[in-house]
Amino acid sequence: MTTLQDCDVLDQEDPLRELRQQFDLPPGVIYLDGNSLGVLPRATLGRVQEVIQREWGQDLIKSWNTAGWMELPGKIGDKIARLVGAGPGELVVADSTSLNLYKVLSAALRIAQADAPARKVIVSERSNFPTDLYIAESLARQHGARLHLVDSVDEIAGTLNADLAVLMITEVNYRTGYKHDMKALTAAAHAAGALVIWDLAHSAGAVPVDLKGADADFAVGCGYKYLNGGPGAPAFVWAHPRHADRFWQPLSGWLGHAAPFQFTPDYQPAPGIKRYICGTPAMLSTAALECGVDTVLAAEGLGGMAALRKKSIALTELFIELAEERCGALGVRLASPRNPERRGSQVCLSLAAPLQHAGYAVIQALIARGVIGDFRAGDPARLDEVPHILRFGFTPLYIGFADVYAAVEHLYQVLKTEEWQRPEFARQGAVT
Amino acid sequence: MTTLQDCDVLDQEDPLRELRQQFDLPPGVIYLDGNSLGVLPRATLGRVQEVIQREWGQDLIKSWNTAGWMELPGKIGDKIARLVGAGPGELVVADSTSLNLYKVLSAALRIAQADAPARKVIVSERSNFPTDLYIAESLARQHGARLHLVDSVDEIAGTLNADLAVLMITEVNYRTGYKHDMKALTAAAHAAGALVIWDLAHSAGAVPVDLKGADADFAVGCGYKYLNGGPGAPAFVWAHPRHADRFWQPLSGWLGHAAPFQFTPDYQPAPGIKRYICGTPAMLSTAALECGVDTVLAAEGLGGMAALRKKSIALTELFIELAEERCGALGVRLASPRNPERRGSQVCLSLAAPLQHAGYAVIQALIARGVIGDFRAGDPARLDEVPHILRFGFTPLYIGFADVYAAVEHLYQVLKTEEWQRPEFARQGAVT
Repeated sequence: MTTLQDCDVLDQEDPLRELRQQFDLPPGVIYLDGNSLGVLPRATLGRVQEVIQREWGQDLIKSWNTAGWMELPGKIGDKIARLVGAGPGELVVADSTSLNLYKVLSAALRIAQADAPARKVIVSERSNFPTDLYIAESLARQHGARLHLVDSVDEIAGTLNADLAVLMITEVNYRTGYKHDMKALTAAAHAAGALVIWDLAHSAGAVPVDLKGADADFAVGCGYKYLNGGPGAPAFVWAHPRHADRFWQPLSGWLGHAAPFQFTPDYQPAPGIKRYICGTPAMLSTAALECGVDTVLAAEGLGGMAALRKKSIALTELFIELAEERCGALGVRLASPRNPERRGSQVCLSLAAPLQHAGYAVIQALIARGVIGDFRAGDPARLDEVPHILRFGFTPLYIGFADVYAAVEHLYQVLKTEEWQRPEFARQGAVT
Repeated sequence: MTTLQDCDVLDQEDPLRELRQQFDLPPGVIYLDGNSLGVLPRATLGRVQEVIQREWGQDLIKSWNTAGWMELPGKIGDKIARLVGAGPGELVVADSTSLNLYKVLSAALRIAQADAPARKVIVSERSNFPTDLYIAESLARQHGARLHLVDSVDEIAGTLNADLAVLMITEVNYRTGYKHDMKALTAAAHAAGALVIWDLAHSAGAVPVDLKGADADFAVGCGYKYLNGGPGAPAFVWAHPRHADRFWQPLSGWLGHAAPFQFTPDYQPAPGIKRYICGTPAMLSTAALECGVDTVLAAEGLGGMAALRKKSIALTELFIELAEERCGALGVRLASPRNPERRGSQVCLSLAAPLQHAGYAVIQALIARGVIGDFRAGDPARLDEVPHILRFGFTPLYIGFADVYAAVEHLYQVLKTEEWQRPEFARQGAVT
C-alpha cells in the first residue's frame, strides 16, 4: 500500500506543484469540491478591486471602451478555447450554462430540422445534470420535439437513428464521473445524421478536450468549477464555425447584434459566435473569471492539459487504491469507472449495506474534519442501482498526493470510530 | 436667471444632500450618465472583498448556505420591490434585462393567447431600447405573433384592440426621457383585453413606480443604472402574483426548479417568482448590486422615492432653464418633454442647424472637461425628426444644483468658443 512517505515523495517530484501557489487555500482544509466551486486564485481580489475602484469608480462609463470591458467576453473566450481545442474567435463567455445550452440547443434543433424535418428527438442521459434536461424539456416543447433519456451509456448507440436531431451529452457525468469518448460518440451521431452538443461543465480545465479534433457541433461549459472563476461565474459557449452563422439563437439581446451601438430597431445578428452574447455582461464576475482561467493556462509551460490530466489520473488512482485498501472492509465501494480513461477528475464512492443510508452523515463528518467533498442523493426506492454518492473532485492545480492520503485517513477514522453517527451530522432539511 | 449662489443655497437646503456621501465620486467630474452606469457606492468594495476573501476564499462551497448566497436573489428582489410598488416575494434579481424580458414576454404571450388565441400582436415603440425590440422580434417569430412598432406615443391608443396580446413599454424612454403614464396605459390595455409589460430600466431608483397600484402584469428592470449595482449588474424581474404561477417561463434552469437539490430529471417550476430564476447567479456582481440598491433605500428615512423624484424634477427643471437661457442662442434645443410629469430623470438636448451634426463632438468636449453625458445618434436621413441627442442623466442621490450650473456653463463654453471643433473630438469608428 502507498504510504504517506510515498505521497510526500510524489508531491516533491510533481512538476506541477508550483501551481498551487496561485491560490489562497484555507488552512486545515483538504478541498475535494473543486468540481462544484473552484478555489480562490490569489490574483482575483486585486483584479476585482481594480475593476471596482479604477475602472468603475474612477473611469465609469468610459471603461466599456478604455478598460476593454466590451471585448472581455471574447478575450476570455479565446483563453478558454485553448483549453478545449477550439480556435480563436470561436468561443465567448456569457450568461450561465443553462442559458448557453438554451442558445445552442435551439440553434442545433433548427439546423437539424432544416436539414431533415423528420428528426424530432433529443437524446440525453437521465443522469445528466438536471438543468441540461430542464432546458431540453423546454425546447422540446417549443420545437415539437421529444426528449428521450437513456439510463445507461450502452443505450445511446440504439438511439442514433433517423429520428435523432441532437445528441446532448455532458462529457463527464456530474454524479458518477463517467467520461464519454467525445470523438467516437460525435462520429457515431454524425454518421446517423444528427448533431452533437457537449456540456463541458466537468471537463474544461479538468481533462483535455479537443472540440475541433472531435468535430463537435456545439459546446457549453461552466466557469466556476475547474476554471476557478468564482461563485456563479459566467459560463461559455462555442459553436463550430460551420454552424456559428446559421440562424439566430433566440436570446437575441443587443450585445449579440452586429452593430449594437447603432441602436437600430431591427435585429441583425453579429457574425460568428458573438451572436451568442445576449445582454450586458456582469463585469465583476467576468473579470474574476479571467483570473481563474489564467490559473489553468499557467500550466501551459509545464505540459498543459496533458500534464494536468496525467496528475489528475494519478491522484484519482491513488484515492481509489487507498480508499479500497483502507476502507473497503468498512463498506466503501467505488461508484465511478475503474478505467481512468473513462473517468473525469472526480471519484465517487458509495457505502454498502448496512451503511447504505449513511452517506450524508459521512460527508458531514468529513467536512467537520476539514475534508470537503459533497453528497449526491441516490434513488431511495432503489439504492442498490442508484446509491447515495460521496463525491470527491481532484483539481490537480492545487491538490497533492499527501492530501489524498490524508483524506482517505479521515474517511477511515469517520467510519472506523462511527463518528458519522454523531447527531450533528444527521440529515436535516434541504441538502446542497 | 438662477445664479451659482442660488444653486449653492439649494444644495445647502437639500434634505437629501447627505446621500452623496454614500459614493466615491471621482474628483473633478460632474457625472450625468448615471442613467447608463451608476457610480460606485463606498460600501461596494468592502462587501465584494468580503464575498471574495471570506465567503468564497475561506468558506468555499458552504457559502451557498451559510453566507446566504442561495437566498440573495430574493433578498435583493424584496429590496427592489420596495422601490417599485411590488410586494415581498414577488420580485427576484436574475440574469440580464434582455433575458428577463424574454421570460416575461414569453409568459405574457402564452397567457394572452391561452385566454384569446386570436391575439397575435405585440405593440412597442420604435424608439424603445433596441434589446427589448430584438427579444420581442425573436419571441414573435416563435409564437406566430407580430411585433408592431409605433412611432409616437399618440399612436398607442389605436393599437389597443382585439388583436393586441401584449403591450410592452419602457416606462421612461432611453432616448428622449419621455415618461409614460403607467397607470392610465395599463388600464387602457387591460380594457382592450391585453397584458402589459413594463421595462423599468430608467425608472427603478429614478422615479416612483407603483406596479401593484397600476395593476401591471409584468416588469423587468436594470441593476446598473439608477440602482448603482455596477457594470453589468444583474437585472430584476417581477410578475403580478395572479400570473406568477401560470406557465413555465422557457428558460427553465435548475435554480427555478421547485426543489433544485433533489436533482430530479423532470422540471417542476418553483411556485411564484422564483421560477423566473434560471442558472447559478453571478455572486460577485449580485453582492455588488445589493450595495447599490441600499444607496437608494437610504432615502427611505428622508422621504424615499417621492423626495428623490422632487429633487430630480428640480434638477432637470434647472438644467432646462439654464441650458435654454445660456445656450439657446447657440443652437441648443430641448429634446425631452417640457412637462416634468412626462419626463424621467434625464434631459436630452439637440442642436439646431448649422450644428445639427456637432452633437458627438460637443459631448466629447464636455467629457474632456469632466462633464460626463452621452451621445445617441439620430437618423441621418431625417435629423429634423430624429436628431442627434446629447443625453444627460440626473441622479438625485449624488448630483447637486451647483453641478447642474457648472455643467451648463461648460456646455456654454464648448459652444461659444467652438472648442468642439478641435480634431480630437471628431467622431471616429464605433460609438458607445
